[in-house]
Amino acid sequence: MDKIKAGIIGATGYAGQELVRILLGHPMCELVSVCSRSYAGKPYSEVYSNYSHLDYICEEDDIEALADKCDVIFLALPHGVTSQRVNEGILSKCKIIDLGADFRLQDVEVYESWYTEHHSKDILKEAVYGLCELNRDKIKGKRIIGNPGCYTTCSILSLYPLVKEGLIDNKSIIIDAKSGATGAGRGLSLGNHYCELNESVKAYKVANHRHTPEIEEQLSYAAGEKIVLSFTPHLMPMDRGILATCYATVKEGVTYEDMEKAYKKYYENEYFIRLCAKGSFPETKWVKGSNFVDIGFTVDERTKRAIVIGAIDNLYKGAAGQAVQNMNILFDIDERTGINAVPIFPA
Amino acid sequence: MDKIKAGIIGATGYAGQELVRILLGHPMCELVSVCSRSYAGKPYSEVYSNYSHLDYICEEDDIEALADKCDVIFLALPHGVTSQRVNEGILSKCKIIDLGADFRLQDVEVYESWYTEHHSKDILKEAVYGLCELNRDKIKGKRIIGNPGCYTTCSILSLYPLVKEGLIDNKSIIIDAKSGATGAGRGLSLGNHYCELNESVKAYKVANHRHTPEIEEQLSYAAGEKIVLSFTPHLMPMDRGILATCYATVKEGVTYEDMEKAYKKYYENEYFIRLCAKGSFPETKWVKGSNFVDIGFTVDERTKRAIVIGAIDNLYKGAAGQAVQNMNILFDIDERTGINAVPIFPA
Amino acid sequence: MDKIKAGIIGATGYAGQELVRILLGHPMCELVSVCSRSYAGKPYSEVYSNYSHLDYICEEDDIEALADKCDVIFLALPHGVTSQRVNEGILSKCKIIDLGADFRLQDVEVYESWYTEHHSKDILKEAVYGLCELNRDKIKGKRIIGNPGCYTTCSILSLYPLVKEGLIDNKSIIIDAKSGATGAGRGLSLGNHYCELNESVKAYKVANHRHTPEIEEQLSYAAGEKIVLSFTPHLMPMDRGILATCYATVKEGVTYEDMEKAYKKYYENEYFIRLCAKGSFPETKWVKGSNFVDIGFTVDERTKRAIVIGAIDNLYKGAAGQAVQNMNILFDIDERTGINAVPIFPA
Amino acid sequence: MDKIKAGIIGATGYAGQELVRILLGHPMCELVSVCSRSYAGKPYSEVYSNYSHLDYICEEDDIEALADKCDVIFLALPHGVTSQRVNEGILSKCKIIDLGADFRLQDVEVYESWYTEHHSKDILKEAVYGLCELNRDKIKGKRIIGNPGCYTTCSILSLYPLVKEGLIDNKSIIIDAKSGATGAGRGLSLGNHYCELNESVKAYKVANHRHTPEIEEQLSYAAGEKIVLSFTPHLMPMDRGILATCYATVKEGVTYEDMEKAYKKYYENEYFIRLCAKGSFPETKWVKGSNFVDIGFTVDERTKRAIVIGAIDNLYKGAAGQAVQNMNILFDIDERTGINAVPIFPA
Repeated sequence: MDKIKAGIIGATGYAGQELVRILLGHPMCELVSVCSRSYAGKPYSEVYSNYSHLDYICEEDDIEALADKCDVIFLALPHGVTSQRVNEGILSKCKIIDLGADFRLQDVEVYESWYTEHHSKDILKEAVYGLCELNRDKIKGKRIIGNPGCYTTCSILSLYPLVKEGLIDNKSIIIDAKSGATGAGRGLSLGNHYCELNESVKAYKVANHRHTPEIEEQLSYAAGEKIVLSFTPHLMPMDRGILATCYATVKEGVTYEDMEKAYKKYYENEYFIRLCAKGSFPETKWVKGSNFVDIGFTVDERTKRAIVIGAIDNLYKGAAGQAVQNMNILFDIDERTGINAVPIFPA
Repeated sequence: MDKIKAGIIGATGYAGQELVRILLGHPMCELVSVCSRSYAGKPYSEVYSNYSHLDYICEEDDIEALADKCDVIFLALPHGVTSQRVNEGILSKCKIIDLGADFRLQDVEVYESWYTEHHSKDILKEAVYGLCELNRDKIKGKRIIGNPGCYTTCSILSLYPLVKEGLIDNKSIIIDAKSGATGAGRGLSLGNHYCELNESVKAYKVANHRHTPEIEEQLSYAAGEKIVLSFTPHLMPMDRGILATCYATVKEGVTYEDMEKAYKKYYENEYFIRLCAKGSFPETKWVKGSNFVDIGFTVDERTKRAIVIGAIDNLYKGAAGQAVQNMNILFDIDERTGINAVPIFPA
Repeated sequence: MDKIKAGIIGATGYAGQELVRILLGHPMCELVSVCSRSYAGKPYSEVYSNYSHLDYICEEDDIEALADKCDVIFLALPHGVTSQRVNEGILSKCKIIDLGADFRLQDVEVYESWYTEHHSKDILKEAVYGLCELNRDKIKGKRIIGNPGCYTTCSILSLYPLVKEGLIDNKSIIIDAKSGATGAGRGLSLGNHYCELNESVKAYKVANHRHTPEIEEQLSYAAGEKIVLSFTPHLMPMDRGILATCYATVKEGVTYEDMEKAYKKYYENEYFIRLCAKGSFPETKWVKGSNFVDIGFTVDERTKRAIVIGAIDNLYKGAAGQAVQNMNILFDIDERTGINAVPIFPA
Repeated sequence: MDKIKAGIIGATGYAGQELVRILLGHPMCELVSVCSRSYAGKPYSEVYSNYSHLDYICEEDDIEALADKCDVIFLALPHGVTSQRVNEGILSKCKIIDLGADFRLQDVEVYESWYTEHHSKDILKEAVYGLCELNRDKIKGKRIIGNPGCYTTCSILSLYPLVKEGLIDNKSIIIDAKSGATGAGRGLSLGNHYCELNESVKAYKVANHRHTPEIEEQLSYAAGEKIVLSFTPHLMPMDRGILATCYATVKEGVTYEDMEKAYKKYYENEYFIRLCAKGSFPETKWVKGSNFVDIGFTVDERTKRAIVIGAIDNLYKGAAGQAVQNMNILFDIDERTGINAVPIFPA
């Protein structure tokens, strides 16, 4: 089989760079083009010195030209931009995997109330939400994938079996999430200045983070009813990793064994989902640099609440790794190809 | 006025050391004796080199001898130990401020179900829970104080006004807490080995942390009814600080303004409690090295949940600082004496 | 005695803020004015939330107005700026302590070759280099002090006794220094973006850091001959602290005991200098949040080199703390007043 | 070609674990056996949860049994142990790559003066020092390799061209090295307790670190004369990475261009050595999780000193990665196989 020809637009953000790194190690993919408007013409290794043994040059992000030479284009751009770039002509030539927010929410109204005007409403209709473990079958054969957000990947996968199996009160869901600083990107801000972020923890965007509707939409599909939930992200003094601590009241009589059965039903054969043993819970370090999702759960008998904790690497399974997993599904190769690394530790 | 003569038993743990540091800067207190069974006879500066300009020697922790020469003894010992050491004879000679767990819970049964056998049940009856802002009047004149735990100080103060004023559904309380590694003490363990804790986040003691009943007991007093709640502690890759993110469903019609009124009612004149402006939330860095408690709150109109976030320095307001605050109250001097430092930043 | 009235120009940088913090705890000083051109009119607590219990408002940095109401003005401004602001009129009204570089180097030519044009050459002549332990007597009674740099304070104090006593080959001095990120200030840059600095170490300004001539000038005074040396700063993934590892070939026959004698001769009675026991060396954590300088030294018999290691808190003894120490000397009060804190640990 | 069958003795230390991780991703190697005396019988994933998707069980470290089923055995054991285990019988069956210190130093007397008694002096004679870039030709065909230490790999490669080409005064070499905490291993100690190591920097084993004679022996070979040098290791608050800042007086007239020529002569075609552009210097983050060595250099014209800075990942090129590089050379496959990862960033 010929190698899949891939291009990346927005290759100089943290997620874009992680994608470059993963694709360079992918045995069935050729990275054809690394694009960045801001750095066009500059060696990629000037932007990221970990690539100083390689010769990639940042190119202008001409999506039309890219579509002619690529089988798949990954976009890692600010929301509202991708939906202006993608069109039928491009989709007729190559697959699109969007790491941004524009093709994640199916409900345009919800998108526009949390983000901005959507410029490709027709295309949105055919886009699939690329949460691979849940939507694998829908992804196959599609032309455009909305790659899930980092918090959402972790949160949805953590709660899906409970919601799908009707084990919890859907009105009682609270997600308290913790993320490393790569989630905030490479753009300079006082909040991400070393001495301001180091040795401290804070919540941010309390009650209004844009990943909320994405989690709600997907869990609502699973529940068969509209779910509204609380989502609070926190910033941790570390580079990578998301931990989502999820709370929900269990329905009368639901036991740990019921939960375990549900998690096994959906995830037992999922390579990238690792369920913790009873009494164990995940730590972000055990998934760092990998596509794994670790999930631990219990029922607190005192409060009748399920507590489910999920952990991912936000740049890997939460962005670039899952994007490649989507590519693997789209091109019908082993889903694990190129993203099968054991987590790196200590790191 | 003569200086208050103070002794510390258990001076070589992190909380004990913070107490030494604070008392050395206290203008109305003389640190008479620094005791440590493990290091008896050794210079304190060999245990903690930040004291290398001083001449303290660790002494045997002979509480009887200490009671003869001190006005107040601070104990920072493992639970179950203090309750075996304190007796009427000692209490007749000097004040006791216990930084451990033995005199925090009023309900002996609850204590014994979460900890171990209690050896001073009679003395427990006269002990006061030293959460200064709430129990100031009860503390005055007492002989023995149970100094609150770190998580509990932060959690109770964050939720008290809402519970006391009846603004929330008391069955809906969830506290998701994050702590720096000093909370785990100086004892060696793999989980606190640098490379194992660094760059990672995890929950621990999920659904069974011993600070849970302490929070429940105090909030139950405030509510006038028994409260059972969820409390999940997390370990952060940083030295100091606790952030408690608290969730509770508000009663029908409760607004942000109602909440604000409640917080101002109880805290407006509290020097050590700083309420965040609307839309702002605390960060642990802003209270580091200080006795301050920063609290921010909102109502999420989508979910009808109150979200309250509190931040403290776990070693200061969460341990040694509050212990000194208790001493100040007991000896009827300005409550802020010696613990009035502006938080240190960046640090 | 009336309190010393102090004003700060450039109060919103990290060094300026540390100065605010220290002066607020100084029992014999009143902080009259906190100035910042960038934030004029804003509450200081909006710039630094650790001050949210206080009411300071950032003022325009009008040095003339300040001179009328202050006994001392601290300036924490970029180099080249202070030398344009200070003049005879101001000096006739109040003392000036400059935390910047403009009044540190006595040799104008050296200053201009490493920095920029100097605008107060006459005033420079009366300025004293405020390295308190070495220049205490010269500082007394002066009108203007050039407060030393952070690297320089640590480096000069580490090497001074060896140079002064002629124990080393002055041509062989190499200083390999390591600093926390506060040394780079609060200005945004990619190099100080959290994820870029965290978990990494690098050298910077190799062979051309501006603290080099400052160290050379002072050590040359001590040596009575011109010293040229190597100075290499490194950036550490931590907030505070400088460690200077100094190497120099000892003169024939020089032993550890000779070195010890020299260090004791100059430092035994210096409160803020703590000499490590034989075989011990400093760590930055033991001086954090304090004005102490810890110094350890040895002779490597294999290479006949002296190795001297000094540690300071770069914002405290390396900037604001020493500035206050200079103020104490200028106003003839106990040098330790207000800067006598035990180092904070763990933090 | 059949896959190389590999076993690891001492697989549960940090270097052993990194080796497991790398070998699992090596396309031409089969990891046959993972041995650990302390954890024999336990799932490897209980020791390191990043392996929770795999089924390796720790085995007894029976080197005789291992020799029968393996083509190569890696040993990651404390010094003095390996030299007691290896014997002619084992060497007749399989290759040995020792990550410990026992087969690094050729001079037994030096070994015994820095370490302990050597138990395999005969075997030591045939052992090759596995610094691949310098000893590639000697490694081929050998039976036993002493895999270099982490500090030594970085230090020797940084200085080799200057020494070999005679550009510096060999008596003037000073190496000031900085390492992340993984270098200290997984064994518990107060110095590696999170809160003790975090946010601080210190030197350790000043003038007596055991990597000193290893660097000296190799550089002496290059120089053709005995070299004695200064080596000072420092512990950084980070997980991985070594930065070696090397100083040496250049011989009269030696310029940057001379140095550049020397570095290019030896390293231009070395895949894993990346020379920094003029004026640039390495940072440990750019080599993390990779086998690369980044080297930058300059001449300080003021002091006539060469400053050379090298960076490696101590667990990768400094231990497990180089061990695999040695395996690749021994088995005559492309040296880069399985260790060709782009450095992971940010991490």
